[in-house]
Amino acid sequence: MKAARYYGARDLRIETIPDPPPPASNEVTIDVSWGGICGTDLHEWTSGPFTINTPEKPHNITGDHLPVSFGHEFTGRVSALPTEYPTDGKFKLNQPVMVDPRIICRTCSSCTTGCDNVCQNWGYIGLNGGGGGGAGFSEKVNVEMRMCHLLPDDGSVDLNSVVLCQPLTVGRHAIGSTGLPGGALSGMNVLVLGGGPVGLAVLLNLRAKGVGVGLGGRVLVSEPTRQRAGMIRSLGLANEADVLNPMEQNVAHVCREATGGIGVDIVFDSAGAEKAMLAGMEALRVRGTYVNIAGWKTPFQIPMQFAMFREINIRFSLGNNDNDYREVVEDFIAGKFKGAEALITRRLRVDELAEKGLDELVRNNDEHVKIVATWKEDLLA
Amino acid sequence: MKAARYYGARDLRIETIPDPPPPASNEVTIDVSWGGICGTDLHEWTSGPFTINTPEKPHNITGDHLPVSFGHEFTGRVSALPTEYPTDGKFKLNQPVMVDPRIICRTCSSCTTGCDNVCQNWGYIGLNGGGGGGAGFSEKVNVEMRMCHLLPDDGSVDLNSVVLCQPLTVGRHAIGSTGLPGGALSGMNVLVLGGGPVGLAVLLNLRAKGVGVGLGGRVLVSEPTRQRAGMIRSLGLANEADVLNPMEQNVAHVCREATGGIGVDIVFDSAGAEKAMLAGMEALRVRGTYVNIAGWKTPFQIPMQFAMFREINIRFSLGNNDNDYREVVEDFIAGKFKGAEALITRRLRVDELAEKGLDELVRNNDEHVKIVATWKEDLLA
Repeated sequence: MKAARYYGARDLRIETIPDPPPPASNEVTIDVSWGGICGTDLHEWTSGPFTINTPEKPHNITGDHLPVSFGHEFTGRVSALPTEYPTDGKFKLNQPVMVDPRIICRTCSSCTTGCDNVCQNWGYIGLNGGGGGGAGFSEKVNVEMRMCHLLPDDGSVDLNSVVLCQPLTVGRHAIGSTGLPGGALSGMNVLVLGGGPVGLAVLLNLRAKGVGVGLGGRVLVSEPTRQRAGMIRSLGLANEADVLNPMEQNVAHVCREATGGIGVDIVFDSAGAEKAMLAGMEALRVRGTYVNIAGWKTPFQIPMQFAMFREINIRFSLGNNDNDYREVVEDFIAGKFKGAEALITRRLRVDELAEKGLDELVRNNDEHVKIVATWKEDLLA
Repeated sequence: MKAARYYGARDLRIETIPDPPPPASNEVTIDVSWGGICGTDLHEWTSGPFTINTPEKPHNITGDHLPVSFGHEFTGRVSALPTEYPTDGKFKLNQPVMVDPRIICRTCSSCTTGCDNVCQNWGYIGLNGGGGGGAGFSEKVNVEMRMCHLLPDDGSVDLNSVVLCQPLTVGRHAIGSTGLPGGALSGMNVLVLGGGPVGLAVLLNLRAKGVGVGLGGRVLVSEPTRQRAGMIRSLGLANEADVLNPMEQNVAHVCREATGGIGVDIVFDSAGAEKAMLAGMEALRVRGTYVNIAGWKTPFQIPMQFAMFREINIRFSLGNNDNDYREVVEDFIAGKFKGAEALITRRLRVDELAEKGLDELVRNNDEHVKIVATWKEDLLA
């Protein structure tokens, strides 16, 4: 089969490699439809390997190291079942599925306490090996059945966009990371810092959960680029005037004005920059909740004048867990992410991935949210 | 009456000033028994004024500024009632009371949402004026009736130590600041960073709430000074081996060992120092709670390797609220703070306050927890 294989920073090679072996009794083989480029992939491309294992340090669970088949956001159809798989089983040939690509041990204290998103042996098919040698940017891949979320094949779901479920789970997890019980966000006032892929995932999940425009509560967004601000407005994820330009507006001041001087209940930080963070802290109400989803390149120094005197609750959200995945796929099927397909700003053949995908994101990041690629010419037609 | 009056850093004067006026209809006059020196007082003494108002910026509510009568931790007996106060009213002459010295507006959005500890017009009688000119280190003071917690006068409560209720409320508030519902701490494993007055207040409240030695859960303490470690052990607030010396032991390692490798559920930081904080973050379990009660003199930079990968919940606790006060006085009366009187390491006459109280704390801070003073010779006998 054909596969895009990661050898190191700026070294992605299109190779022909053996097909995955026949699936084990708990596996299926997936014929990949679409793979998406994640921020992590971009980071690995420009200056990795980071999470990708080197020969000196193979992955705890898969034992694999680079070169690895690339791509951990993917969807496809079942193309092989285990020998003697019952004909009345849950999986059929050609069944469309969204794959949760996480490699987790299910035995560490994180996994056994419902925190499988921070499994201590964590990895991803498509970054850390496994998958019978394939992953999101190869033609085929083997995955465990429990990683597969079944999708309807009756035209009711846009199978060409369902790959967005992976980034959407990150937004879903961030909402859970507020620590507020389900439904409690309804009616709350929220500020999202940064309208990139993660910020958009938060905004789409807020709407799916009944927060925001026309649903009670007010959602404000701080996003400096014209393109992303435009996308948030055109998707109706925040009112025209609530999409703020932090280069031109005092975000904290506008948020406090918008909430009768009290401040917003929750800030989601997908920006990871000091100026945005300070505005977010100043925008928060007494005992408000600050959820950091961002990776920070500079130190995150707590502004005690806000944190202490307002008793702010600072929380952290990393990745996604079983529950986030189940909820997001259910909501996707139920049509709660309508319009999300606009997040896919380019579709490619996998052999164009390096130049028209990864390098394009380096050059023109603001123009894009999600670039997806496929080996299937018919899906591009 | 006699009063200790604050004029500025290292300028405390014993003066004779007018008695408070007759109490207004919602006030009583208190004949002060004991006043305690708080960490804030020490800070004002060495390098203030900080929270004490200057003539350029009088207090929002009292309108007062320095010089001010000093001392905001105090207890005493009712010595005057309002004109026409009903003889069957709650207050009688000579009634012993513990005073909540907070000046709060009860109208700002903090006060009206149960966060009166961070009232936006916050102040203290004894720092920010009010009190009819008196406070904890004067002979008399006027306070509103709602500030008074009534104490039994039958010998069942140690009226010479009840002044400790004020610092104890700070520990009670910190426990509430975990965000965990009442009783949920029982059985939890806790690390307290720093065994000074605030750390001890947390430890005493943990025991009062049923956490710790012999009550389920494990309480570990990191405290470098021999004197304070000794006090924690002699009060039985932690097991001998669970009082750790961070100069000689790896606190994070011991905490993880003590919890089967999982980590503690909660860290209370009353140290406010980077080394202690890093040990505390490393000691925490996945999704553990970190409560900062300390004032920090250096930046608090979030260690993302712990915060993000363990999704740690960082919270902040400041002062105390109505509820903390009510609970602590109730528990004090119920005998749940037995042994706490050992925290009073010196008793003085108020006219010795500067030299034998404030300067002594500057010179020999490790030797002391709480120094209290009185104008009443008979209480010192």
